Amino acid sequence: MKDIEFREMGLRVMEATPAAYFTNVDEEGFPQTRAMFNLRNKEKWPKLAPLFVDHDDDFMIIFSTNTTSTKVEQMKENPKVSVYYCQPEEWKGMMLSGVIEIVSDLSLKKSLWHDGWEKYYPKGYDDPDHTVLRLFPTAAKGWNQSRTFQFMIEATK
Amino acid sequence: MKDIEFREMGLRVMEATPAAYFTNVDEEGFPQTRAMFNLRNKEKWPKLAPLFVDHDDDFMIIFSTNTTSTKVEQMKENPKVSVYYCQPEEWKGMMLSGVIEIVSDLSLKKSLWHDGWEKYYPKGYDDPDHTVLRLFPTAAKGWNQSRTFQFMIEATK
Repeated sequence: MKDIEFREMGLRVMEATPAAYFTNVDEEGFPQTRAMFNLRNKEKWPKLAPLFVDHDDDFMIIFSTNTTSTKVEQMKENPKVSVYYCQPEEWKGMMLSGVIEIVSDLSLKKSLWHDGWEKYYPKGYDDPDHTVLRLFPTAAKGWNQSRTFQFMIEATK
Repeated sequence: MKDIEFREMGLRVMEATPAAYFTNVDEEGFPQTRAMFNLRNKEKWPKLAPLFVDHDDDFMIIFSTNTTSTKVEQMKENPKVSVYYCQPEEWKGMMLSGVIEIVSDLSLKKSLWHDGWEKYYPKGYDDPDHTVLRLFPTAAKGWNQSRTFQFMIEATK
């Protein structure tokens, strides 16, 4: 497989999984992983597909989460994170790492919003407890059966 | 749910998933995640079930891997790791963290061995490139739909 084929396989995995496994490092140095909604999954989040149209080259990742969550507190101290996408039955996976940022842009929060999210953020998209995280990864690793690949990602912003 | 029910749910998730998502922290401080064989999955690895019989209370985790792999090198420098099990369609997950150890015991390597593993370790169970990793986790976090739970794990050894 050529580099471009690995990238395309990685993008397909990113778009196929229901969850993204998001990991930060806590104050004691232990990695902390949890499943998050994979907003790049077009089948589950079709309304959001346009947000990612121009980001196949920079692999941009976005999460919505609670401002009061432990991970947000920890990420303020240590923003080095990774996000892993996996199709375990096919042994395909893609891991992206970089420095995450907290985005305060209300228009982005609004464009992410879905009916029903009131159960997470009762006051709506501008609920102070609604935090948007954005990652422009700088490195990627992937697995396709027994093959592995890795590449750096150029900043496009 | 009571603490004991969370533990039991966590153990069920640990035994149900094909893969375990293993994370260490690299020399630059970025978490590194990859799928590993989940040897606690009784359906996929029935021969290994007896190994784990007495470890439901300490949640012991074992991996086979290549001595020459990047993660083994990195773990010698920083053995703080986590292992995450997830059933994404049900939004159930269990994360265990602690300090991992490299086990040199040949009898353990032999008892783990399966026909076909020659493709990973051509010289057999005692191949110098066959490394066994063992984790007695010290902390657990779990998710069951929107509920979360966590508990510490007492050392039993």
